[in-house]
Amino acid sequence: MARRRMVYEGKAKILYEGPEPGTLIQFFKDDTTAGNGEKHAQIEGKGVLNNRLSELFMTGLNNIGVPTHFIRRINMREQLVRAVEIVPLEIVVRNVAAGSMSKRLGIEEGTALPRPIIEFYYKNDDLNDPIVSEEHIIAFGWATQQDIDDMISLALRVNDFMSGMMMAVGIKLVDFKIETGRVYEGDFQRLIVADEISPDSCRLWDIETGQKLDKDVFRRDLGSLTDAYTEVARRLGVMPRNTSSGSGPKLVH
Amino acid sequence: MARRRMVYEGKAKILYEGPEPGTLIQFFKDDTTAGNGEKHAQIEGKGVLNNRLSELFMTGLNNIGVPTHFIRRINMREQLVRAVEIVPLEIVVRNVAAGSMSKRLGIEEGTALPRPIIEFYYKNDDLNDPIVSEEHIIAFGWATQQDIDDMISLALRVNDFMSGMMMAVGIKLVDFKIETGRVYEGDFQRLIVADEISPDSCRLWDIETGQKLDKDVFRRDLGSLTDAYTEVARRLGVMPRNTSSGSGPKLVH
Ligand SMILES: Nc1ncnc2c1ncn2[C@@H]1O[C@H](COP(=O)(O)OP(=O)(O)OP(=O)(O)O)[C@@H](O)[C@H]1O
Ligand SMILES: Nc1ncnc2c1ncn2[C@@H]1O[C@H](COP(=O)(O)OP(=O)(O)OP(=O)(O)O)[C@@H](O)[C@H]1O
Ligand SMILES: [Mg+2]
Ligand SMILES: [Mg+2]
Repeated sequence: MARRRMVYEGKAKILYEGPEPGTLIQFFKDDTTAGNGEKHAQIEGKGVLNNRLSELFMTGLNNIGVPTHFIRRINMREQLVRAVEIVPLEIVVRNVAAGSMSKRLGIEEGTALPRPIIEFYYKNDDLNDPIVSEEHIIAFGWATQQDIDDMISLALRVNDFMSGMMMAVGIKLVDFKIETGRVYEGDFQRLIVADEISPDSCRLWDIETGQKLDKDVFRRDLGSLTDAYTEVARRLGVMPRNTSSGSGPKLVH
Repeated sequence: MARRRMVYEGKAKILYEGPEPGTLIQFFKDDTTAGNGEKHAQIEGKGVLNNRLSELFMTGLNNIGVPTHFIRRINMREQLVRAVEIVPLEIVVRNVAAGSMSKRLGIEEGTALPRPIIEFYYKNDDLNDPIVSEEHIIAFGWATQQDIDDMISLALRVNDFMSGMMMAVGIKLVDFKIETGRVYEGDFQRLIVADEISPDSCRLWDIETGQKLDKDVFRRDLGSLTDAYTEVARRLGVMPRNTSSGSGPKLVH
């Protein structure tokens, strides 16, 4: 294969130039980090699972009219996406208190929230992705009020859809993070969902047992991350070769 | 059991006075009708399946903050709901052309729509539930503009959530109908989702095969309605006693 130009190497993914202008290839690595890179490991098969699961979720979102960067999966570890101008904000939607919200606000992990709560974090590894308010976002020009309204609409639709998907397979969507990016279409610009949606970027708890099926398994040393992500994939009828758990329903997607 | 007062007997359900003021009991019959009652049959177990599935969907909607009338299931055929003042409109959301839209507008069944399309039908059996526009609704006082905006918001959130649930189990949510009703809370009133959400009120097509898993099986004589509804329930991990298909995953909800 011809040598491709690498655009960016992050902690979990590599971006390459895509085959056409305005496209990129996202390569999913097995690298897994927590605490902004403090903890680091190779988790065999994680990239394959996240590539496949992000495909499933983004395809579903595209289908219901929530615009995303996803175009198509290329192979086990790569997907073709639209290149966007990433808005430097991580948008977190929380249905149940957990993680940093529990710690910062003293709300016991597992407490149901009165309604979905949206938080914005400034994407900046040197600063450890600090939480910010709409005031900060507008004052520093990271996004306009209109952008913020659009990000909130996108995030809430993603929450409704992903809650449904997860509930159908006995999983509670506790929280998740998305990134959005700008695309230009003629004189117009709009925001679409970018990056990935996967157990790396969601908290997923088994509804019956409370078992964690997300990256907290790695962050908190709760067992095999591959087993957790494979269980999510298996319940959703997704069975990437080589990461099959060996049982479960047929591939339906 | 003490004699209960019947409030209304419809084609598919009976409403009884509930145990407390402001509540009703919805009893799901096996009666199945099509073409506004022209075609009629008893389908053994249908009421049990719809009671259980409507519980599942309404509980999920309540959980994500879409308000519904559902309080709790009482037994195999009955559920406790909040009494509402029904808005005399059927709200239909369509993702794919089918049924009356295909016929009226000459769009081939199965054609994906450019975006979800919402339709309102005036609930009146004598008139065969005619389609109406927002102009009619406001002019005849069936609902206000604010009500219509609220109904659209509710309907679109139900669509996102139900699309996710169905997609997770390999089913395409083609369209569905909801009813809404008014509840009064102090000086406020708001609209909540009422009636039922079930394969009687949705079009559900298997993603892989296109097989119909909804009331069209009855309307169009395509086979066993119980088998179709049982398949939906089985995929969603719901296994009412006596209507089990005998195989499938354990009850997860
Ligand atoms: N469609 C896209 N167009 C351009 N950039 C994208 C697109 N989708 C995702 N990205 C960016 O690609 C990078 C993906 O790499 P990765 O997730 O490994 O980064 P990271 O180490 O987590 O760092 P970051 O904190 O920036 O996410 C991210 O910076 C993300 O914002
Ligand atoms: N929470 C509620 N409070 C009051 N009425 C309700 C509530 N939920 C549903 N209903 C009404 O109860 C009836 C349910 O009966 P059923 O669905 O069998 O009626 P139907 O024969 O289909 O006639 P309709 O055309 O009125 O739906 C419907 O008229 C519906 O509008
Ligand atoms: Mg990242
Ligand atoms: Mg009815």
